[in-house]
Amino acid sequence: MSLPNSGNPSPMETMAKERVNIPFDIRKMGVILHGSEESLALKERFMLEMSRDPVMQLRDVHDLSKDELRERTMEKIAEMRHYVKTEDSKTFARRCQTVGLSDAGFQTRFGVSTGLFLGAIRNGSTKEQWDYWVNKGVLQMPERIIGCFGMTELEHGSNVAGLLTTATLDKKTDEFIIHTPNLGATKWWIGGAAQSATHCSVFAQLMVDGKRYGTKTFIVPIRDPKTFKTLPGILIGDIGRKMGRDGVDNGYLQFSYVRVPRDYMMMKYTQVSKSGEVTDTAAPQMAYGALISGRVGMVTDSAVIAKKGLTIAIRYGIVRRQFSAGSDDIETQILDYPIHQRRLMPLMAQAIAIGFASMTLQKKYEDVMESRSHLGPSQLDPANHAAEIKELHVMAAGLKAFSTWACLDMLEKSRQTCGGHGYSAYSTFPQLISDFAVQCTWEGDNTVLMLQSGRALVSYLEDVKKGKNVPDGVAYLKTASSSSGSKSDGSLSLKDIERGFEKVTSGAVEDAYAEYSSFLKKGQNKEKALESCSNLRFVAARLHSITWLFKNFVTALNKTPAGPERKVLEQVCRLYGLWQVELEAAQFLSSGYFGKEHLAKIQTEINDLCLAMRKCAIPLTDAFFNTDFILNSPLGRYDGDVYNAYFDTVRRANPAGPHPYFDRVIKPLLEAPPVNLKGKL
Amino acid sequence: MSLPNSGNPSPMETMAKERVNIPFDIRKMGVILHGSEESLALKERFMLEMSRDPVMQLRDVHDLSKDELRERTMEKIAEMRHYVKTEDSKTFARRCQTVGLSDAGFQTRFGVSTGLFLGAIRNGSTKEQWDYWVNKGVLQMPERIIGCFGMTELEHGSNVAGLLTTATLDKKTDEFIIHTPNLGATKWWIGGAAQSATHCSVFAQLMVDGKRYGTKTFIVPIRDPKTFKTLPGILIGDIGRKMGRDGVDNGYLQFSYVRVPRDYMMMKYTQVSKSGEVTDTAAPQMAYGALISGRVGMVTDSAVIAKKGLTIAIRYGIVRRQFSAGSDDIETQILDYPIHQRRLMPLMAQAIAIGFASMTLQKKYEDVMESRSHLGPSQLDPANHAAEIKELHVMAAGLKAFSTWACLDMLEKSRQTCGGHGYSAYSTFPQLISDFAVQCTWEGDNTVLMLQSGRALVSYLEDVKKGKNVPDGVAYLKTASSSSGSKSDGSLSLKDIERGFEKVTSGAVEDAYAEYSSFLKKGQNKEKALESCSNLRFVAARLHSITWLFKNFVTALNKTPAGPERKVLEQVCRLYGLWQVELEAAQFLSSGYFGKEHLAKIQTEINDLCLAMRKCAIPLTDAFFNTDFILNSPLGRYDGDVYNAYFDTVRRANPAGPHPYFDRVIKPLLEAPPVNLKGKL
Repeated sequence: MSLPNSGNPSPMETMAKERVNIPFDIRKMGVILHGSEESLALKERFMLEMSRDPVMQLRDVHDLSKDELRERTMEKIAEMRHYVKTEDSKTFARRCQTVGLSDAGFQTRFGVSTGLFLGAIRNGSTKEQWDYWVNKGVLQMPERIIGCFGMTELEHGSNVAGLLTTATLDKKTDEFIIHTPNLGATKWWIGGAAQSATHCSVFAQLMVDGKRYGTKTFIVPIRDPKTFKTLPGILIGDIGRKMGRDGVDNGYLQFSYVRVPRDYMMMKYTQVSKSGEVTDTAAPQMAYGALISGRVGMVTDSAVIAKKGLTIAIRYGIVRRQFSAGSDDIETQILDYPIHQRRLMPLMAQAIAIGFASMTLQKKYEDVMESRSHLGPSQLDPANHAAEIKELHVMAAGLKAFSTWACLDMLEKSRQTCGGHGYSAYSTFPQLISDFAVQCTWEGDNTVLMLQSGRALVSYLEDVKKGKNVPDGVAYLKTASSSSGSKSDGSLSLKDIERGFEKVTSGAVEDAYAEYSSFLKKGQNKEKALESCSNLRFVAARLHSITWLFKNFVTALNKTPAGPERKVLEQVCRLYGLWQVELEAAQFLSSGYFGKEHLAKIQTEINDLCLAMRKCAIPLTDAFFNTDFILNSPLGRYDGDVYNAYFDTVRRANPAGPHPYFDRVIKPLLEAPPVNLKGKL
Repeated sequence: MSLPNSGNPSPMETMAKERVNIPFDIRKMGVILHGSEESLALKERFMLEMSRDPVMQLRDVHDLSKDELRERTMEKIAEMRHYVKTEDSKTFARRCQTVGLSDAGFQTRFGVSTGLFLGAIRNGSTKEQWDYWVNKGVLQMPERIIGCFGMTELEHGSNVAGLLTTATLDKKTDEFIIHTPNLGATKWWIGGAAQSATHCSVFAQLMVDGKRYGTKTFIVPIRDPKTFKTLPGILIGDIGRKMGRDGVDNGYLQFSYVRVPRDYMMMKYTQVSKSGEVTDTAAPQMAYGALISGRVGMVTDSAVIAKKGLTIAIRYGIVRRQFSAGSDDIETQILDYPIHQRRLMPLMAQAIAIGFASMTLQKKYEDVMESRSHLGPSQLDPANHAAEIKELHVMAAGLKAFSTWACLDMLEKSRQTCGGHGYSAYSTFPQLISDFAVQCTWEGDNTVLMLQSGRALVSYLEDVKKGKNVPDGVAYLKTASSSSGSKSDGSLSLKDIERGFEKVTSGAVEDAYAEYSSFLKKGQNKEKALESCSNLRFVAARLHSITWLFKNFVTALNKTPAGPERKVLEQVCRLYGLWQVELEAAQFLSSGYFGKEHLAKIQTEINDLCLAMRKCAIPLTDAFFNTDFILNSPLGRYDGDVYNAYFDTVRRANPAGPHPYFDRVIKPLLEAPPVNLKGKL
């Protein structure tokens, strides 16, 4: 009796074959992809420590309720107290990021305290205020103080200037009165508010002598640290279940005439004296730093989470077999189907591209912040730093939007390539997707950020036209727009692709600028005209992000020592570029850079590159260095033993027990008397 | 003290304004979008009944655990017993679909019994077998018998021919022995298996006298209906948590030499005699019907679920205000931003297009099935029906894939337009998305289905080239390919768009065919050559789906009586067409149908149409006729009172209570002694 597919080798044999004759050194590749040997070694160390720490276990995580997840997350945060005190801040940040690879809720909940709340004090306080809060214990968080970040309100997210919470100076008592004037002003989505925080950094309208001075930050104690009871005048509620990140205890806060000392306003940039004098030391855009930091982190998240999802999908695609070619008794590995390669290989290239982008952006951010950190508030001259900050801001905004959208898309596509099993909670994809989805919204809605980036591009082009200098990252607006007759040399080389992207992007910026100008001429004011050209601005910003990502990939390649790793990465880079050309083909055709005949060739080249990548797909996922522990998905098993692991996981997570509702609901149905229904049909 | 945005009118005032001077009759529009007055009236009746039925309540649904959801879902199924006996099958199907609008888990779990399991018997049984199972009570489900559908296995999803479960004839006892030979053959994902079913329709390899006869269906009793204990030789396990649809008790089954009477094999198409003689009455593709039915239903699901999500997003977009234009104290409604219109209005057009497509497809399906239902198995001549079935199959496969992808995309985009609040479970988007996501995978992975559609297109083109007849739906392959010089007349009229789509699609089919032929010439066999051209096949299938959807929309318009409703729908149709042209712009540029100058005009026209649609966006969502009960999202409130409803919902769902882990986890942190960490920074 012969059954179908009886010739299939076992999944483990199938996987083992993929690691024979690897064309490059996996560790060397890992070092390149992680930026340095040190960075890779740290990640490995953290993953090892986590896998041995009972609090960090992941096995049961897909079946925890919201309440259980929250408690587990707080336990993890408590577990960090040791490292807060013993590790330098860079190492510690890296540790938190690695924990975040398997628990996005942890990353958010702890990040709200140590990034946003602490950052609000660090960036906003005077020297005396800083010392005061350090003495209170903010550097020791989660010990002694736990902070939350009270920015968004029920009716106001992106529009910080429109927030309605008020902080009114009471000169008699030398206090601010924090107040929520109506339902819409309720602080909403505040991570850590529902169950963790003792203090909140509240964004509120500064009101002095009946005059409004705009949104400032106030530190407000919200709970008695001994009893955890809310303090007088403070209502805290629980926001409840979310799409993902249920380990975060998001809450809402309403303040009813809550008093805090005048000194609890962060006074680095704006000072309010006892007598009600309001003075500004530096321009408010100097406070951009904290927001940019979050966005830089999200580009990194996009890269590492996409690589995690792709590792699972690609390993599963190697092991999974479906349909046999002709009369053969061996079924085909699904990653051997050209269409499956098409589904996954360009995404792998994109994840790697975003990984290089995140390293460059992080470095740039650190350089800019470093150059500012030596300066006191009075030395922060806006004129000196505005251009630098603007460039960084624009870069981070566009890349945050592009990368988080790309990552969410990659996760969902990766999930779909795992077929039905990708829908199982135990595949870990549902968690990855639902946890990640919020990144497209928070710290700047992606569409809004893209438009900001597009707005900057339009203004840079205006500068170019006026003969002014523009940052290196957009210098191509000068050259590419002046060589409007240029065409591809037909080589489809990296240089050829790069020139093409510069050309189409500068063309798209020109189009947006032209539409903007035409609306100005029709009498619209600047803001209105910018809105009217928003679709083209959006397109320009998207193209600019791709151009930047691609050029950055090429730059990273040029810094990589010659060798087999670089050779493979050149193919990855080329695949990324050509695939993006195909997606944006209309732009290339319109501009005349590529013609129809080029596109046909590009289509074939992409197919060929996908096949080439498929041949080293497993070594490449190995070079992402995600252990089975951190992947937490039987489908992504390193050794390929997918089905046994999956079956065991499902079985352990769902032990047999008595039927919970047979007697009450099902039995009466089965015992119902027969009814003749033949006539019904 | 003036606060920002103090001039904002209330959300309810804002919403009320949108319903003044509506340019069409909402009920008339509703009838058009629902196909008939009767269809709309039924939906209204069911929604009303549900809102008054305690078992159907939705208020608490976002906080139910998997176990609670499952019990609730079974209660809903039990609630259906009354209607099973009193309603005709079409009305009852409509009722289940309406329940499914708010509970996809119900739709699946009950559908598995009444659609798939019962369908397997209905389509596969002889007259005697049918009478036998009807006497057993299958028409009375969920009473007396509850069935599940045992097709997929752990290692085999799409590949039904590759299933490994065996059904071996034992002539001595006149029984089949059902057996699971190994782990990979475990029946997996079987909805209703874990907690509901008494019987399973098992797909297994028919084995007689050591010879394999392919995959057939066997009805296997799996539980004692009195005790609900599993029967001897049967292991049932629970698959546990999923991305969504946790109301469905998916399970796995392993059979160890389980015996069923020979008559429990469904013998309409293949018969096995007592002595082991195997005969075929009709070709197995005649069994396609059941699969097609599921796919037709998914096109309908895509339309109605997308309309539900868009109703929420559009209503929220009307009420939500953010940023004020200039010095104005009134903030702008976000749907008044051109980019927000761009995000939502084309999706609304797409949802309406898919709605019309679903009605046409359903009608076509019913017509074909109707024409076959009078025939006994021996009369089902493959030659007579193959072409008709093939056409329907290809149409359903492509539209299922296109529509479910489009719907998932529309839901995620709609969610994102609601900003942070779209991430709240109470917005209902997380549930909509996670429940819907599986539609891209089940009953045919979308990529596989698209390629099947592409394969058919290539073969239809081959027929055209050979001068053979092809179905009406692809007749354009004849005309469009012969007029390869044709260009747009520049009018951008519906006719112009239609001609353009026919041209680019036939061009894409030609490209796929050319690549296919070139691989044949290089010596590949037919299957291999089809794989090699899969990317172009995929593109052709996607374009064909769009072409079909657009042409069908135009046809539906032509059947709509003249009047203001039709006028608005013409704009919707034009927006849909032009937006799709923009998305597929590279195809149009390559083919020369549209030039660069057309695309610029199209970009502007889309902006204008988005603005026109925005003006009647609320009346259009009203014409989707989803009550607040069925929407179950405070963000989508009919009256616009979004924030009060949202706050109330969150508050009711998350009542205050004692802190669950303060003493154990947080208190020790807050009481930790101070440590001097200043040196660390």
